[in-house]
Amino acid sequence: MSEPAQTLDGWYTLQDFRTMDWASWKQLSSDERQAAIHEFSQYLDKLNAVQDRKEGSHALYTIVGQKADFMLMILRPTLEELNELENEFNKLTIAEYTIPTYSYVSVVELSNYMAKESNEDPYQNPYVRGRLYPILPKTKHVCFYPMDKRRQGNDNWYMLSMEDRKELMYSHGMIGRKYAGVIKQLICGSVGFDDYEWGVTLFSDEALQFKKIVYEMRFDEVSARYGEFGSFFVGNILEDNDLEKFLYIK
Amino acid sequence: MSEPAQTLDGWYTLQDFRTMDWASWKQLSSDERQAAIHEFSQYLDKLNAVQDRKEGSHALYTIVGQKADFMLMILRPTLEELNELENEFNKLTIAEYTIPTYSYVSVVELSNYMAKESNEDPYQNPYVRGRLYPILPKTKHVCFYPMDKRRQGNDNWYMLSMEDRKELMYSHGMIGRKYAGVIKQLICGSVGFDDYEWGVTLFSDEALQFKKIVYEMRFDEVSARYGEFGSFFVGNILEDNDLEKFLYIK
Amino acid sequence: MSEPAQTLDGWYTLQDFRTMDWASWKQLSSDERQAAIHEFSQYLDKLNAVQDRKEGSHALYTIVGQKADFMLMILRPTLEELNELENEFNKLTIAEYTIPTYSYVSVVELSNYMAKESNEDPYQNPYVRGRLYPILPKTKHVCFYPMDKRRQGNDNWYMLSMEDRKELMYSHGMIGRKYAGVIKQLICGSVGFDDYEWGVTLFSDEALQFKKIVYEMRFDEVSARYGEFGSFFVGNILEDNDLEKFLYIK
Amino acid sequence: MSEPAQTLDGWYTLQDFRTMDWASWKQLSSDERQAAIHEFSQYLDKLNAVQDRKEGSHALYTIVGQKADFMLMILRPTLEELNELENEFNKLTIAEYTIPTYSYVSVVELSNYMAKESNEDPYQNPYVRGRLYPILPKTKHVCFYPMDKRRQGNDNWYMLSMEDRKELMYSHGMIGRKYAGVIKQLICGSVGFDDYEWGVTLFSDEALQFKKIVYEMRFDEVSARYGEFGSFFVGNILEDNDLEKFLYIK
Amino acid sequence: MSEPAQTLDGWYTLQDFRTMDWASWKQLSSDERQAAIHEFSQYLDKLNAVQDRKEGSHALYTIVGQKADFMLMILRPTLEELNELENEFNKLTIAEYTIPTYSYVSVVELSNYMAKESNEDPYQNPYVRGRLYPILPKTKHVCFYPMDKRRQGNDNWYMLSMEDRKELMYSHGMIGRKYAGVIKQLICGSVGFDDYEWGVTLFSDEALQFKKIVYEMRFDEVSARYGEFGSFFVGNILEDNDLEKFLYIK
Repeated sequence: MSEPAQTLDGWYTLQDFRTMDWASWKQLSSDERQAAIHEFSQYLDKLNAVQDRKEGSHALYTIVGQKADFMLMILRPTLEELNELENEFNKLTIAEYTIPTYSYVSVVELSNYMAKESNEDPYQNPYVRGRLYPILPKTKHVCFYPMDKRRQGNDNWYMLSMEDRKELMYSHGMIGRKYAGVIKQLICGSVGFDDYEWGVTLFSDEALQFKKIVYEMRFDEVSARYGEFGSFFVGNILEDNDLEKFLYIK
Repeated sequence: MSEPAQTLDGWYTLQDFRTMDWASWKQLSSDERQAAIHEFSQYLDKLNAVQDRKEGSHALYTIVGQKADFMLMILRPTLEELNELENEFNKLTIAEYTIPTYSYVSVVELSNYMAKESNEDPYQNPYVRGRLYPILPKTKHVCFYPMDKRRQGNDNWYMLSMEDRKELMYSHGMIGRKYAGVIKQLICGSVGFDDYEWGVTLFSDEALQFKKIVYEMRFDEVSARYGEFGSFFVGNILEDNDLEKFLYIK
Repeated sequence: MSEPAQTLDGWYTLQDFRTMDWASWKQLSSDERQAAIHEFSQYLDKLNAVQDRKEGSHALYTIVGQKADFMLMILRPTLEELNELENEFNKLTIAEYTIPTYSYVSVVELSNYMAKESNEDPYQNPYVRGRLYPILPKTKHVCFYPMDKRRQGNDNWYMLSMEDRKELMYSHGMIGRKYAGVIKQLICGSVGFDDYEWGVTLFSDEALQFKKIVYEMRFDEVSARYGEFGSFFVGNILEDNDLEKFLYIK
Repeated sequence: MSEPAQTLDGWYTLQDFRTMDWASWKQLSSDERQAAIHEFSQYLDKLNAVQDRKEGSHALYTIVGQKADFMLMILRPTLEELNELENEFNKLTIAEYTIPTYSYVSVVELSNYMAKESNEDPYQNPYVRGRLYPILPKTKHVCFYPMDKRRQGNDNWYMLSMEDRKELMYSHGMIGRKYAGVIKQLICGSVGFDDYEWGVTLFSDEALQFKKIVYEMRFDEVSARYGEFGSFFVGNILEDNDLEKFLYIK
Repeated sequence: MSEPAQTLDGWYTLQDFRTMDWASWKQLSSDERQAAIHEFSQYLDKLNAVQDRKEGSHALYTIVGQKADFMLMILRPTLEELNELENEFNKLTIAEYTIPTYSYVSVVELSNYMAKESNEDPYQNPYVRGRLYPILPKTKHVCFYPMDKRRQGNDNWYMLSMEDRKELMYSHGMIGRKYAGVIKQLICGSVGFDDYEWGVTLFSDEALQFKKIVYEMRFDEVSARYGEFGSFFVGNILEDNDLEKFLYIK
């Protein structure tokens, strides 16, 4: 048996993708729509307050194409809190006018592949804490995709030695670093929680960089031989101010 | 032909995953909702009574994300009883406000891979009986996933000798034991009953342990080379007392 | 090219799986439900009359879990008769309250893998006729699954010689014989008719035997290397007398 | 690069599979149903007139099982004509009571694998023209399935030399010829048009022959190693005279 | 790690496939339909104005078969603009009578596999600009399909050296050139944006040429060993003038 990677685990994460049921939404009166938007805004205000206290974080992005109209991404210390916020959202008026299209449950994760050895408790290290309990950046664009490491014939990641995996992950990480100023990458582990092993969320002000980094990485052995990818979602930030415009009906 | 594993088989198991149709549920009057919750509680009371008599067991958990809002898991001595309880649930008012999203049919199973030889009838052994006819623990969290053993090219579990499988299962079991105090694992066989060969249900008070054990096992040859996994579901216990809160609409 | 197996072919078979739309069914008045049940019973009576004349056979089973609430299985000499009975069912009131979830079209089949050579016309042999035009047994439980023989890399059933396949099928058949008194097995060929190559229906009074036989066979090379399985369905007999109870609403 | 096969291409083909929404259909008054059937018959009359002029062809078959209730298959010289007839059908009253379940777009095709060399323009050859612009036979049964040639590891059809493919197709064709009097086979190419590379439609007065030919061919290397099959549909002819009976509600 | 290909990237592209909900559309009054068509035409007029200014482009095609009734394809400099146009379409009356069936998000791409080396900035080269920011041709037919390069066992595109890929792409490109006067090919990259790595759109006045080119290419090693294809969509141009006819109800 190969030595398993060790992980540090931070906040639990729920990514909730919804399509608007525009036909029904349009049937509401303007006042009813206004009330529903207001109620949704209040819900977001509560999330903002938690974020201001650094007890969690969230982000709201539109999604381009038919896979969803928007994605609400919430990070919290426990699964119970995520579940409560999910149910609270589901009971909002706006939720009645959305169709769930995809969701992802995971936990912010740092692996020890690239970690230096140390005697200190990493959970006390401020840099590590900043990564495990992150306040999500307000970049213009987001990209999300779930992924597995392949276990197929001769391309079986989990049969590689720790040493080999470390080496592979190192050169993979080097690609990531080239995009350091342009892309913020959030890796969440989902083994035991959802259908893939990881959920990757990329944040950037330049949408094209998502394509550049994922394509460049695909030529790296870690992705080329061992990467299995789920659906890709890409979208634009939906600022609280723009919510009304997004939901506006003439 | 390889020597097949022998199994001991206990209670039949139905795991029934449902999404709430919140939009319709909200259209009921408060009194109608109250009546539906009351009727559902009475149904659960009947299950509790059976469980108190140790003639079956059950558990009710919420599920995080869009795969389901809750899972009702029921164990009974016969398929007929499971079927009757399923139909009874389907005829409850609450069921009209749920959408079936997934289910799993299986039977509690112990394999002989790790069993000591003995002359006694294992079905009379109190320890074995406790595992075949278990009262489900009321842990804070649950994790469910169905799985197969792979039959693909050189990675064909069913072509391995009994000896090789025993050895592999032994080291796999050793990982499980490390989590003995933290995770309770229920293995149910579903060959001939449902689409995968096993349904695995994990119970724990720490959700993170689900990720730890499944990820650690994935580096073990049994999973790395021979495991094929279906969807993963994770959730939080829904105590009878919390049912009303879960279903409450302002 | 390998020598193809020869088959004897009997009655055409339609397996029709349906979920009840309980919410709509409950909205009917008690009298309307009673009338729909009565109409359905009359339909079943017609099937019974045909079965009594041994001009066809059928079986009605509930299915456990969300894949279906019941399966109606009908055997007839021609595809036209099956189609007519399907359409007749679809025009019944009860059908309006069902949701089609799966179906399978096939023909009862005996292969020559295990046949003794003989000069007589097998279609005149009473034993063979009994197997090609069977009256379905009224066992307590049923198990259905479709399957293919694999054609993948080195595991390609259709590239094996007739001799090799005969030998493999012989030892496979020997497992089946061990269950002779406990399980009745109906093999239907569906090449050219439906998405898999065979539909297998098992009948038994002990549901656990389905798991035992399918699991034991999986260690045999025919299944281990060459079996590809679709969905598994398991259920309980629904006697004509119990129809009313099954569909009863308080 | 292997030498590609050359094809002769005839009429464009649309196969449109529909399920009846019997519940809604039954809610119409008898007169409304009669009017809808009449309108559908007029549409079919127009198709018949075109067919009489040999400017196109079509066939209407019921389909057994839940995959569809009927299939309308139309052949025309251009994609525009197919599209217009599809839209015209969609605007009929009957279409409101159908649910689209599958469709296939392709073009009648003859490959040069088995062609003799010749200097004449094959498009002027009456035999070839009869096969490229066929009037569909009115056989009792139909069988449809889409298929690919495999490109997988060592089983890659498109990496074989023209010579090897010719030889393989020759012996494959020899099987087809054995069924010459019993089955009429229509091969349509769909590369660039639909999800598989070919759509195969078989016509016969004996449904069992569909199983016989497809099963026999499966042992031939072309299918055994290189065939990838989609869904299979089987059905019975729906003569214009029987339309009313098929759609009749008591 | 293999040297990644470099790309030039132009306009973002959204392909939005919709099925008409003809049953609901027919329930509108003739005036209501007329108003909806007029509103849709105004939306298209706005797109036309942008296209006239060469600040974007678009195309409207019907799709043959059940996959969609039409596809609206829009190219714009930013993801935000695409998203806004998508939302604006979704809020039109016509959108209420459509069902989303598929969409694809990508960006017009030129790779450096076939590029000559040069010191000039390619983004200033008028020929390159014409290809990155294209005004879509008004051909009679369109063909769309998404595709991946395979990463499977010995057929792993991303493990090939740059030199090998260049050579393979060169001979692949040579096939394309044979169709130069007949087919216009638009390659869009979608790594990080959608589920496949590329979206390919072909434009031609002869639908048969789609089949010819894709089939011929399939025998080339790039497709034969390394191509993985998604769904294929084919259709006919829907001129602004023909919109009314397409949506006309008697």
